[in-house]
Amino acid sequence: MNEDQLYAMRHSLAHIMAQAVQHLWPEAKFGVGPVVENGFYYDIDLGETKISEADFKKIEKEMRTIINKDYAFERSEKGIDEALEWARDAKQPYKVELLNDLKREGTTLASELDAAMMGMELPAGISGAAHDSVKSVVDVSFYTDGDFTDLCRGPHAESTGKVGVFKLMRVAGAYWRGNEKNAQMQRLYGVAFASQEELDVYLNMLEEARKRDHRKLGKELDLYTTSPLVGVGLPMFTPRGTILRDKLAAYSNQLREQNGFEKVWIPHITKHNLYETSGHWDKFGDELFLVESQETSDKFAMKPMNCPHHTQIFASQPRSYKDMPVRYLETTTIYRDEKTGELGGLNRVRSATQDDSHVFCRLDQIEAEVNGLMGAARQLYESVDLKLRVRLSYRDDSDAYLGEPELWVSAQAQLKAAVEANSLQYFEEEGEAAFYGPKIDFMATDAIGREHQLATVQLDFVQPKRFELEYTDENGEKQTPVMVHSALLGSIERFLSVFIEHTGGWFPFWLAPEQIRILTINDTVMDYVDEIKTVLSEVVLMKPLKYNEVRFTTDERNESLGKKIREATAMKIPVQLIVGPKDKESREVSVRTHSGEEKIALDRLADFLQEL
Amino acid sequence: MNEDQLYAMRHSLAHIMAQAVQHLWPEAKFGVGPVVENGFYYDIDLGETKISEADFKKIEKEMRTIINKDYAFERSEKGIDEALEWARDAKQPYKVELLNDLKREGTTLASELDAAMMGMELPAGISGAAHDSVKSVVDVSFYTDGDFTDLCRGPHAESTGKVGVFKLMRVAGAYWRGNEKNAQMQRLYGVAFASQEELDVYLNMLEEARKRDHRKLGKELDLYTTSPLVGVGLPMFTPRGTILRDKLAAYSNQLREQNGFEKVWIPHITKHNLYETSGHWDKFGDELFLVESQETSDKFAMKPMNCPHHTQIFASQPRSYKDMPVRYLETTTIYRDEKTGELGGLNRVRSATQDDSHVFCRLDQIEAEVNGLMGAARQLYESVDLKLRVRLSYRDDSDAYLGEPELWVSAQAQLKAAVEANSLQYFEEEGEAAFYGPKIDFMATDAIGREHQLATVQLDFVQPKRFELEYTDENGEKQTPVMVHSALLGSIERFLSVFIEHTGGWFPFWLAPEQIRILTINDTVMDYVDEIKTVLSEVVLMKPLKYNEVRFTTDERNESLGKKIREATAMKIPVQLIVGPKDKESREVSVRTHSGEEKIALDRLADFLQEL
Repeated sequence: MNEDQLYAMRHSLAHIMAQAVQHLWPEAKFGVGPVVENGFYYDIDLGETKISEADFKKIEKEMRTIINKDYAFERSEKGIDEALEWARDAKQPYKVELLNDLKREGTTLASELDAAMMGMELPAGISGAAHDSVKSVVDVSFYTDGDFTDLCRGPHAESTGKVGVFKLMRVAGAYWRGNEKNAQMQRLYGVAFASQEELDVYLNMLEEARKRDHRKLGKELDLYTTSPLVGVGLPMFTPRGTILRDKLAAYSNQLREQNGFEKVWIPHITKHNLYETSGHWDKFGDELFLVESQETSDKFAMKPMNCPHHTQIFASQPRSYKDMPVRYLETTTIYRDEKTGELGGLNRVRSATQDDSHVFCRLDQIEAEVNGLMGAARQLYESVDLKLRVRLSYRDDSDAYLGEPELWVSAQAQLKAAVEANSLQYFEEEGEAAFYGPKIDFMATDAIGREHQLATVQLDFVQPKRFELEYTDENGEKQTPVMVHSALLGSIERFLSVFIEHTGGWFPFWLAPEQIRILTINDTVMDYVDEIKTVLSEVVLMKPLKYNEVRFTTDERNESLGKKIREATAMKIPVQLIVGPKDKESREVSVRTHSGEEKIALDRLADFLQEL
Repeated sequence: MNEDQLYAMRHSLAHIMAQAVQHLWPEAKFGVGPVVENGFYYDIDLGETKISEADFKKIEKEMRTIINKDYAFERSEKGIDEALEWARDAKQPYKVELLNDLKREGTTLASELDAAMMGMELPAGISGAAHDSVKSVVDVSFYTDGDFTDLCRGPHAESTGKVGVFKLMRVAGAYWRGNEKNAQMQRLYGVAFASQEELDVYLNMLEEARKRDHRKLGKELDLYTTSPLVGVGLPMFTPRGTILRDKLAAYSNQLREQNGFEKVWIPHITKHNLYETSGHWDKFGDELFLVESQETSDKFAMKPMNCPHHTQIFASQPRSYKDMPVRYLETTTIYRDEKTGELGGLNRVRSATQDDSHVFCRLDQIEAEVNGLMGAARQLYESVDLKLRVRLSYRDDSDAYLGEPELWVSAQAQLKAAVEANSLQYFEEEGEAAFYGPKIDFMATDAIGREHQLATVQLDFVQPKRFELEYTDENGEKQTPVMVHSALLGSIERFLSVFIEHTGGWFPFWLAPEQIRILTINDTVMDYVDEIKTVLSEVVLMKPLKYNEVRFTTDERNESLGKKIREATAMKIPVQLIVGPKDKESREVSVRTHSGEEKIALDRLADFLQEL
């Protein structure tokens, strides 16, 4: 089954679900019912009646009845006024509202599109023609299956019998059109696949994802916390979580320092002027956190990105072509005013720490610079066992892009050459570039098959011009540099949300907050434990991160070994050293890792750990 | 001459200066004229007439005439109304205003005290009694010398002939009562000492300080920059300056990690609720940078300190007495809404990065914890060659302090024991404690004799209560921990402002941004330079900071050695390696350091650098 067929099938199931709901609750008023990833939903208003998971069985049963009847999906068209009459007769006020908006010169189409971009889907039922913005008179298409008719732009499966396998997943509150001032409806979600086998794979993946949920593991492994006094989307990291953050950031820095990057430091706020000059104020001014001085009349914003600040460091000295490229890196926190409802765990936060970097280079240096960054990204993702592929995002023929076209042609070719030099799997997409330059997006596939966009390398022809950055070329002429923005981890918080779930909390040895726990069998071994500690305190890992001192603790409580092992395993300590009187006698330790248990001589322990 | 005599002498010179100004400009209106460190000033309103440095000679000459006349300072008292009459007759509107405020039931005394705390001094001339807050009728004292009378609470030198040596230093604008809505006056500054020799020492020190000015060196050595687009008080650090920041912070962390501290991470903003609970909102709410979400109705503040956030990490898990102490450290930036006029260089900034730490401990653990922190501070200041002495700040008998008195007695004794255990020079002051607990302030003396308060260790009995922090004791009962706040460097920006001037930019080898520069004599040595580079790239310093890779560059330009040495010396590179054909032949390098030049065999170079 291809993507289009899958779409039609899921779309048809949204109708069938609404139809079943109408059979069970004839007073149901329907909002919109689009296809989403892996499935579909419908927003439903049942007044005081609340659908609960306990109702899913009877809804699914009614859906199956409709499916078994194998009704054909029949398309028809009505003029807008006729359509409105239909909606009024059917007592569907939300459909009336949509149709009225459409009639009013299609004005709400724009706002509907906005809503879609904010995560709400376009209403099913509005004819394709309506997409062409301002048409004041439109025809509206309807689809009918059996006793159920809905306005809908299609397409649909041939009949209700041809919709694969499905399962209702959950019901949640959703404001009509995503606006909290509107009525709250019930959003009923289902998933659907062509075969039972595919559905099972998906449900297993969900179950696995649930077990690995980084919010659950974050708590169990004591990695981060939140506080209502501080606010949602502002996680605080405990000592264990901070080790993860720091080691990942240090490794990202190490890889870039090997490529000639130098650390810089900027404050987290700026006067508005910086963004007025960069152009961000016009584009994103209303998405910024504004900062107000009470002592003076100064107005600031929290930085939602670091590039404008970094240009000011570049601009602080005259630069010659011999100084280029100038490469800055900084691990620093940006603040974005995300909506409260969208915040959760580490995936979407208001305080995101980026392992950011900016290269200022000549046009002919782009390929080498991007090549270095690609190499660094490849190494990093290999070290954390995440499979990478990349998307090369180019401009298209529209006039939505700034900078001379020849610049783009040269730059896009250099990006592609760098990607090929790194033997990375890639695909190209026209029209996906940023307005200021082409880019490379890195997609990482996790252990349960989900793909996440994390690292990025972006060229920028615009900011250097806006800030009037310059260097002197061989002939003493002033030239404008190109900027290369990049982040290897992306946002550390988001990377961690992916990485915690990817590993299920079993972090690689070099990254684990507590790498080793010594578990004593009884008190007679305490002097031997001291010897082991001395050995461990001298182990400094050099790969992949340099100067990584081994982090260990000792569980010398008067508890059973079984209990000690259970607790260390619950905390997912990668190396457990079990020490009993026999180990002491033979000057060995029993090393328990994910791959089993083995005896290691004490004088071999340091080497053993270096090789993990 | 003791401190009191020096004070009286400087105070008398303020009068004599005003007297001289009145002789030269009879229309002069006088504001306040207090004693300040090393000297005195007087705020003067001369209408359109501006005093410039060119006028200093004639003012000083007139002052000498008054001094030579050796007028006695004679004290008299007037009732408040009589005093007001005097001020009106004398056409001194600022004195009238001060006296009127005083008459209005002493109400402005409070605001005058506020002004004093904000850096403005108390007006001379208000009788000591006025300090006792609300007295509606007061007597005001006056001092007269020759033809000049001023309201003044004294004391003064016996006569104008007994005022040591002085020099006028500068004149600057100053708003009446520090409020920019008031008239702008001219603040005329002088310095004064008991002897010419002391004045000369002071003037030499000033000249030396001018040469070492960190704002000048910061630019010359390319350490930091500012941008009008970003705003004043928000410095940005270049790669060189960032190395200084990072190495200092890493060393401070290393010293504390050896004492069991663990890194944590918090965001830079919080909902107001956190500070409402901590009590900071009531005390400092109008000094905070306020942050506004445009997407939601959430209100935040930028953190001006880190302790409240850190309490939330402590509170995220149940704690037992066996877990105590819990020790957090974090190098993180706080934001304080300093007034624009007070900002300059790195000394006073709006974005200050603290090497902050917080211990949560039992009462009986205070001494050991403070002892560890004192040891860390002592080691750090020894490493940067700054001499330390400490002030032990205790409570007095007033009721300005929170927490039970026995707690204070025990805590103060533990602080003192820790200071003595570290053989640090100390002095004790009652009444200098914070309201929430006693503290230790570290005073560091720089190379030209100036003393700066940098590090601090403070006990806190209040926040643990306010946040209801607790641990379970041996008997299963809930107990409230004590908090120990501390910072070793204090604010990194302020520390750097002191340290750059202390060293004059000649940073110790381990800290220098560029530690080594290889200077080639000609092109024939390039293969040998590659060998030297290989040696250098393997040198990792371990003292005082661990894992400190050597930072070197090569100057292989086709320029004279003299020019290369001059440039490397201007950048204060501590080690210059001069490499010529003879060095290549003998497999040596000529090492040029602050202490001279010597030949070192290449295979001895790594050891040589380790010993620097």
